[in-house]
Amino acid sequence: MTSSDDRISAVEAELRILRDEREITRLVASYGPLVDSGDADAVAALWTSDGVYDVDGLFMQGRDDIVAMVRSRAHQDFIARGCAHFQGPVHVTVNADEATAAGYSLLILSQDSGFRVHRATAHHWRFVRTGAGWKASRRTSRALDGNSVAHALLNAAVRGLDI
Amino acid sequence: MTSSDDRISAVEAELRILRDEREITRLVASYGPLVDSGDADAVAALWTSDGVYDVDGLFMQGRDDIVAMVRSRAHQDFIARGCAHFQGPVHVTVNADEATAAGYSLLILSQDSGFRVHRATAHHWRFVRTGAGWKASRRTSRALDGNSVAHALLNAAVRGLDI
Amino acid sequence: MTSSDDRISAVEAELRILRDEREITRLVASYGPLVDSGDADAVAALWTSDGVYDVDGLFMQGRDDIVAMVRSRAHQDFIARGCAHFQGPVHVTVNADEATAAGYSLLILSQDSGFRVHRATAHHWRFVRTGAGWKASRRTSRALDGNSVAHALLNAAVRGLDI
Repeated sequence: MTSSDDRISAVEAELRILRDEREITRLVASYGPLVDSGDADAVAALWTSDGVYDVDGLFMQGRDDIVAMVRSRAHQDFIARGCAHFQGPVHVTVNADEATAAGYSLLILSQDSGFRVHRATAHHWRFVRTGAGWKASRRTSRALDGNSVAHALLNAAVRGLDI
Repeated sequence: MTSSDDRISAVEAELRILRDEREITRLVASYGPLVDSGDADAVAALWTSDGVYDVDGLFMQGRDDIVAMVRSRAHQDFIARGCAHFQGPVHVTVNADEATAAGYSLLILSQDSGFRVHRATAHHWRFVRTGAGWKASRRTSRALDGNSVAHALLNAAVRGLDI
Repeated sequence: MTSSDDRISAVEAELRILRDEREITRLVASYGPLVDSGDADAVAALWTSDGVYDVDGLFMQGRDDIVAMVRSRAHQDFIARGCAHFQGPVHVTVNADEATAAGYSLLILSQDSGFRVHRATAHHWRFVRTGAGWKASRRTSRALDGNSVAHALLNAAVRGLDI
């Protein structure tokens, strides 16, 4: 028969997984609201201080680069005309103090009549556990326009593999 | 060394957060299926009896108002032609017996050739714990068409702040 | 006063629900990345060996049928031109060794200028607990084009009812 202490240890171990996945899921779910409200510092704080944000045509490293993207003319124009960085659910795999997640986003833009899908993007996220909680160490994103890199990102991410 | 009882108490406290967030997440995830199938009473039952549902151009308070919206000609026409009230993941912050959530939805409409995005909307949800579980006490929603109120809703919601 | 063992048992029972819902949610979240990267065997392995995948105009039963769909000319053309099988959050109801989930997906296709919503679909999922974890035993999917079957699928699924 299992002792009470063993049962408690098993429960604690299982809770640790749920807690880590919850924190990472919330981090990703906060990205859209923060970037669509132009909160540049809060967006940048989702990454580690030397975190990488690698998206088609733009390679950012470090929080200053991310702040600059949010404050850029291009992003501010999206906000002013109306945009939604609509994230889907993420598939998270935690491995000790690192984690990987697969996800999608749609960039929806307002137009004269209704809205349109400007871009559908595949994401491979990497996270690390820090003293200030989980942070993104790298997000690699490619449009799903037939580019085989986007397919490779999704497949590696959902298997919990680095790229 | 931590006693068994202290360890159990810590586990119970952590489970309480996960349980509350799960219940609220399921409530939001049930909104689309209920509203797209025209289940007016079940949609209204997601709110408290005096709950507020404040969306562009329509202010509802109380379940009768919500039932009337679902049964309205406008909503029934959406259902008949084909619509999806597609919700994204929510970012939930629980504070004792109240909670706040940030989220997005897309209203997708069927048209002669395929489908189109009719509206992309930002949501600030408030919930209260009741004897019948968590209920929405207020949902404030604005289209992401450049309206700065929509940006303020998202930013407050993701920080767990009321508006 | 509740004994320590009773408290541990209550925690274990609650964790069982969270664990089951987590596993099913991850299964659904892996569908998009696997199908959009053309990983036919991994897609098929989400279903039981005699699982049913019933979608408008195509009835599949068993993993060979699902593998054939992923490898079909139609699906490979979607991948090559650029597609996202964008899943929304699912509403999961577990009942012992069976489970039901309601969900939506958007099929987004790349086109000359940006992207478009090719289809918005309602899903009624059924799962069973197997020796290899939860597997889909049936997914029934209908486009939200006004078809009343799609409405019935959503409403049954969110109530945890079979169809």
